[in-house]
Amino acid sequence: MAIILDGKGTAAKINEATKLKANELTAQGVQPGIAVILVGDDPASQIYTRNKHRKAVNLGMKSILKKFPSSVSQDEILNEVEKLNQDDSIHAILIQLPLPAQIDATTVTNAIDPKKDVDGFSSVNLGKLFGNQAGNYPVACTPKGIMTILREYKIDLSGKDVVVVGRSVLVGRPVAALMINQDATVTLAGIKTNNLKALTKTADIIVVATGVANLISGNDLKEGAVVIDVGINRGEDGKLTGDVDFESASKVASAITPVPGGVGPMTIATLMQQTVELAQWSINNGK
Amino acid sequence: MAIILDGKGTAAKINEATKLKANELTAQGVQPGIAVILVGDDPASQIYTRNKHRKAVNLGMKSILKKFPSSVSQDEILNEVEKLNQDDSIHAILIQLPLPAQIDATTVTNAIDPKKDVDGFSSVNLGKLFGNQAGNYPVACTPKGIMTILREYKIDLSGKDVVVVGRSVLVGRPVAALMINQDATVTLAGIKTNNLKALTKTADIIVVATGVANLISGNDLKEGAVVIDVGINRGEDGKLTGDVDFESASKVASAITPVPGGVGPMTIATLMQQTVELAQWSINNGK
Repeated sequence: MAIILDGKGTAAKINEATKLKANELTAQGVQPGIAVILVGDDPASQIYTRNKHRKAVNLGMKSILKKFPSSVSQDEILNEVEKLNQDDSIHAILIQLPLPAQIDATTVTNAIDPKKDVDGFSSVNLGKLFGNQAGNYPVACTPKGIMTILREYKIDLSGKDVVVVGRSVLVGRPVAALMINQDATVTLAGIKTNNLKALTKTADIIVVATGVANLISGNDLKEGAVVIDVGINRGEDGKLTGDVDFESASKVASAITPVPGGVGPMTIATLMQQTVELAQWSINNGK
Repeated sequence: MAIILDGKGTAAKINEATKLKANELTAQGVQPGIAVILVGDDPASQIYTRNKHRKAVNLGMKSILKKFPSSVSQDEILNEVEKLNQDDSIHAILIQLPLPAQIDATTVTNAIDPKKDVDGFSSVNLGKLFGNQAGNYPVACTPKGIMTILREYKIDLSGKDVVVVGRSVLVGRPVAALMINQDATVTLAGIKTNNLKALTKTADIIVVATGVANLISGNDLKEGAVVIDVGINRGEDGKLTGDVDFESASKVASAITPVPGGVGPMTIATLMQQTVELAQWSINNGK
């Protein structure tokens, strides 16, 4: 039976450290501040942004939420981003996705000052990551959270054969880059990959981020594989399941993240952690 | 016996088209212009920059070469880059690598206006590529040249299993990104990958860019694989060889680039092609 990679517990430890660090910075006169831009009234986005706001306040940070109606123009959002770029009390800016059709996510994301781009989605930060640049820069929170949980459980990447299923800019690509940068041999695959399940059986470590419930089962894994399940799918019964069939996979894997309680809690904990890091780096002038 | 992927011939075709396009732009009052910054007196760099200069002039472009002694400071290079960024007659800026120790290649590369970054090495352009952004932006010339030669020979990437051996920012990473963006299943490996040769045997298409002469032989390939050899290594006998043993590999592969005459000529042809594209995009405001 696999070790359960406890994201909830790890996130709690990260949050504890974030709170201490936030208090320390506040005592130095630099309270970490995060601003979230929310457009429209998508119920899931409203829940996510409310949770982020509560968590930030709870950890001792400044948090502001800028709400816009779904009819807002792209220029209005760009103006708001520019104001927040100039606001010294804000170290982290996040634009909640998805956005309505009249707003181009790439354009508004790239308008965020790269030093405040807490989601790490802007081209320049993605390029630094993919180019394995030295120095401090923000990285997408879910991938960064995955690396934290692997480090927490002392799972080394160097020389490992990794398969990442899912090519998104939010998860698949940056987690592949992070692992390449740690000298893993990484295959970036998608649900349309030929013989996907022959490929996944070769992986020492597999990351699945497709949004397809139960895509990967125990039969598709190498004995002893480490399984990172990024999927969060709600079944007809209302129950959450991942992209991996936990029951069969946990009999073959050596370690596995559960859903819920695995990668999910790490994402928001990493967002908070990275807000504090951005505040710290702003003092140190990026060092 | 494999088809020989004729880089020299393909490069000649590209150059012909580049010359026509350069003349067309010049007739419109926008002669494409490239500036090369050369630091120190490395003999190989001197030959490369001279070849680039001659080729650019030969194709009807403006070409300027800015030479600096190896003792030059980073600030002097940054000043020169800024001048060239402001110079409307220059559409492409290239800093010849390697640079002396007192100059940080990442810093000076990132100082180039991304719209003039003809090598595509700056973080923002690397990020656009890795994020598969729409629109026009420069891409590293060797990887882009590899894609051109594959297209020339109607070798489709979609759904193919690709192995890239070599994780450099100049070749391995961007070529992997280009192929991911065309829906290939790409594994980015290095010479330290476990069981590298078991891995290379799974590839429909293999790109080798390691600088290790004859690293891959016919025994390491799948029957019918397409082989792209980026290596240029000079043997003790003065003969050039690639990272692939051509003789044995060409008996197993369905298609293969020779060394010399394969990827090499595509790099400089792509540099010229991209200079003209940057000039064209500057007129169209990036469209």
